[in-house]
Amino acid sequence: MKDIPVDRTVDVAIIGAGTAGLAAMSQVRRATENFVLINGGELGTTCARVGCMPSKAIIQVAEDFHRRHTFDRVGIGGEDKLTLDIPEAMEHTRDLRDIFVDRVLAGTTDNLGDQFIDGYARFVEPDVLEVAGHRIRAARIVIATGSHPVVPESWQVFADRVLTTDNFFEQDDLPSSVAVAGLGVIGLELGQALSRMGVAVTGVDMLETIGGITDPVVNETALTLIGKEFPLWLGHPVKGRDDGDKLLITSGNQSVHIDKILACLGRRPNLDRLGLERIGIDTDARGMPQHDPHTMQIPGMPIFIAGDVNAERQILHEAADEGRIAGSNAVAAEVAGYRRRTPLAITFTDPNIAHVGLPFSELDAEQVVIGEIRFGPVGRALLMGRNKGVLRVYAHRQHGRLLGASMIAPKGEHLAHLLAWSIQQHQNVFDLLKMPFYHPAIEEGLQAALRDLKKQVVDQSEDVLELARLDG
Amino acid sequence: MKDIPVDRTVDVAIIGAGTAGLAAMSQVRRATENFVLINGGELGTTCARVGCMPSKAIIQVAEDFHRRHTFDRVGIGGEDKLTLDIPEAMEHTRDLRDIFVDRVLAGTTDNLGDQFIDGYARFVEPDVLEVAGHRIRAARIVIATGSHPVVPESWQVFADRVLTTDNFFEQDDLPSSVAVAGLGVIGLELGQALSRMGVAVTGVDMLETIGGITDPVVNETALTLIGKEFPLWLGHPVKGRDDGDKLLITSGNQSVHIDKILACLGRRPNLDRLGLERIGIDTDARGMPQHDPHTMQIPGMPIFIAGDVNAERQILHEAADEGRIAGSNAVAAEVAGYRRRTPLAITFTDPNIAHVGLPFSELDAEQVVIGEIRFGPVGRALLMGRNKGVLRVYAHRQHGRLLGASMIAPKGEHLAHLLAWSIQQHQNVFDLLKMPFYHPAIEEGLQAALRDLKKQVVDQSEDVLELARLDG
Repeated sequence: MKDIPVDRTVDVAIIGAGTAGLAAMSQVRRATENFVLINGGELGTTCARVGCMPSKAIIQVAEDFHRRHTFDRVGIGGEDKLTLDIPEAMEHTRDLRDIFVDRVLAGTTDNLGDQFIDGYARFVEPDVLEVAGHRIRAARIVIATGSHPVVPESWQVFADRVLTTDNFFEQDDLPSSVAVAGLGVIGLELGQALSRMGVAVTGVDMLETIGGITDPVVNETALTLIGKEFPLWLGHPVKGRDDGDKLLITSGNQSVHIDKILACLGRRPNLDRLGLERIGIDTDARGMPQHDPHTMQIPGMPIFIAGDVNAERQILHEAADEGRIAGSNAVAAEVAGYRRRTPLAITFTDPNIAHVGLPFSELDAEQVVIGEIRFGPVGRALLMGRNKGVLRVYAHRQHGRLLGASMIAPKGEHLAHLLAWSIQQHQNVFDLLKMPFYHPAIEEGLQAALRDLKKQVVDQSEDVLELARLDG
Repeated sequence: MKDIPVDRTVDVAIIGAGTAGLAAMSQVRRATENFVLINGGELGTTCARVGCMPSKAIIQVAEDFHRRHTFDRVGIGGEDKLTLDIPEAMEHTRDLRDIFVDRVLAGTTDNLGDQFIDGYARFVEPDVLEVAGHRIRAARIVIATGSHPVVPESWQVFADRVLTTDNFFEQDDLPSSVAVAGLGVIGLELGQALSRMGVAVTGVDMLETIGGITDPVVNETALTLIGKEFPLWLGHPVKGRDDGDKLLITSGNQSVHIDKILACLGRRPNLDRLGLERIGIDTDARGMPQHDPHTMQIPGMPIFIAGDVNAERQILHEAADEGRIAGSNAVAAEVAGYRRRTPLAITFTDPNIAHVGLPFSELDAEQVVIGEIRFGPVGRALLMGRNKGVLRVYAHRQHGRLLGASMIAPKGEHLAHLLAWSIQQHQNVFDLLKMPFYHPAIEEGLQAALRDLKKQVVDQSEDVLELARLDG
């Protein structure tokens, strides 16, 4: 391939037109129009096509349908007459997805002309890419090729029974039984949604924890709450084999016949086609190059790596940040480092699972106190008929500054935002208790957790009223 | 009555066993057990008995029932088979209310013994009260007698057709048509709930604004959204007269026959029985004594006035704060002032109406810029089928520090908390945009409003990435 001459020279080449790549482009364009955006495969971001958006659409349907179980208690009759037309629900999901995909496309690739190249890029030199039979020299390159769902090699023998998020939303109908392999964010979200839509779901995972929870108290509550909706088989690898007209799934000494298996085993970075090994980039065992999470640069290279492809923070707002940082640095005279936002991860199960700031697994037990609240008696939770869950807030034992939180909580997504913002603003528990908590709002659950936390902090504030004293 | 001797001397007398009175008691008890809690009439707080709690219970039922209108769009069938059994819904509301009332009672009056006095107190001297035939001398007195719904005198002629929150929740069934007089918080909440439960509701108010909104843009959107559910007759006084077996309600040149009228014209402080005029306290035209909102003290008197009775902030968390301040000062060697929380008021309509910080009516137009977002295109709002509403955020024109916000917004209660906390923490728009906004969460609507705001601030931050640059 050495015989292909470089036939185009640009300031920046961006590989991948997903969330990170488009965010990078938005920054690059502030400095230059001499760039290319290269994309292999289907257009539209992971988020819009197969991720956040269609999953939230189907979760909403499942939650609305599931809500009927509360109707009898409040005087609403006829809930047993409600039916779910799954093909219609899937079509609704795709309709919404198409709106979001069209939005992404309208803003970007539609108007790029020859700044857009359809094809898979591959490194020839650290500043030369080959794509679609052309060679392009780029002063800086942004890798934003995204990720794809992991499917074990051994599943090839029953490939026609395997679903991933790549094909799940294309299903016209749903099978009557599904094993969900992998109970991280996606497995829990889709597993619960499918179960609520009437599919017989079995959840399986090698780990003893679900949803990425590291706090044992939150994990136990999550196992209880989610486990009431569908069985969770934990701690053993999952094996499958064709058996008659079903797939037989085994995990430890449990087994079940199912129609399809939904692979939610994580997302692997799309690195294989890039040929990074050919340009002298050190990669780890997973094939992942080192990079600086504050600059997104690969050390010593004119190359930046942003979004899911770096396997660091596979979450939309982080991918967008990384794209902006990479794009900005790709056109900067000097590469700059940026402070990342406080970690915030939400699983849109019901109740929501959320992690904020430092995870339990990274806490120094001697330095930390934990405030805990269960939602059973929380007024608003009770009023909503959603009073299940637990919230645990971590703070520095000495002065009460917030460090992190973990929860499975009704409306946890909102509590998680309040907590993440408070942590990023270096608030302590005494100051937070001076904030308004409206009644009856779910935020009162957080207030109760903070009160539980406050008692355990060493340097006690004198302010028993939870109000700041005016001077003089 | 001069002949009744003082037969008991206490450190503190608290008049009223509602939210403010009980909060005061919790502080008084830190210093002394020589106090009395005096309560005339029914026990249980306004919040638990006739306010926040039962209203939120019935709103939840109405919202769950109303949600069926979204079912067809997503593939859920049979929504026309759903029925609402109103007597059951009312009973459910009372069941929940009783839980909350019992909780309040269990924590307090149940175990007070002779520290509790059942009766209406009346001032004889600034430090002497008469109640149930006894005179009590108290070194300090906390007035926390609460408020009651306003009903015009002229409505006496059709008194049997008048509902207030005092009797509304006791109804076994609901009338088929109701006029809601007064479209503040309570009128809008109950009006929308009744309408969604199948009652023919007509809303009437003298004002051209609803829900206490002073921002004209938010008001207009609120009129449109709420006005789609039931008619709003604004700008004229409401008149009523019996007409056959109905009540004829007239407002301007519109009129309607209805079964009952729900008076939501505000709540009047319970001051009349106290005899304040007899002890030389200056009162304004409404009969309201002056007081310091930071100490709750009536100037020059050993008397504190807390909660709804002072007509300042008739909201639970503020009443509780006032009670704590009053109680704390009632046993303090020196009276102390406390900083009040950032104003936060939420109307639990759908979408929520909320006011935070400075209201529009108090803004200095020359000093302020306003960020605005409509929820039509906000991803999560669209996914929930709740993409109606507007959010307006006010900031200082020069440096972008947040001042206030007004909204009618899906999940506005949570956005209002984030905004209130941010205002209390003196955040500016540039710092707030560095916080995490999860995708797809309703908080992205706030992010969009902040981005709209940012552009208008004079002192622009250089940080186009919305991320803090690391030093060095």
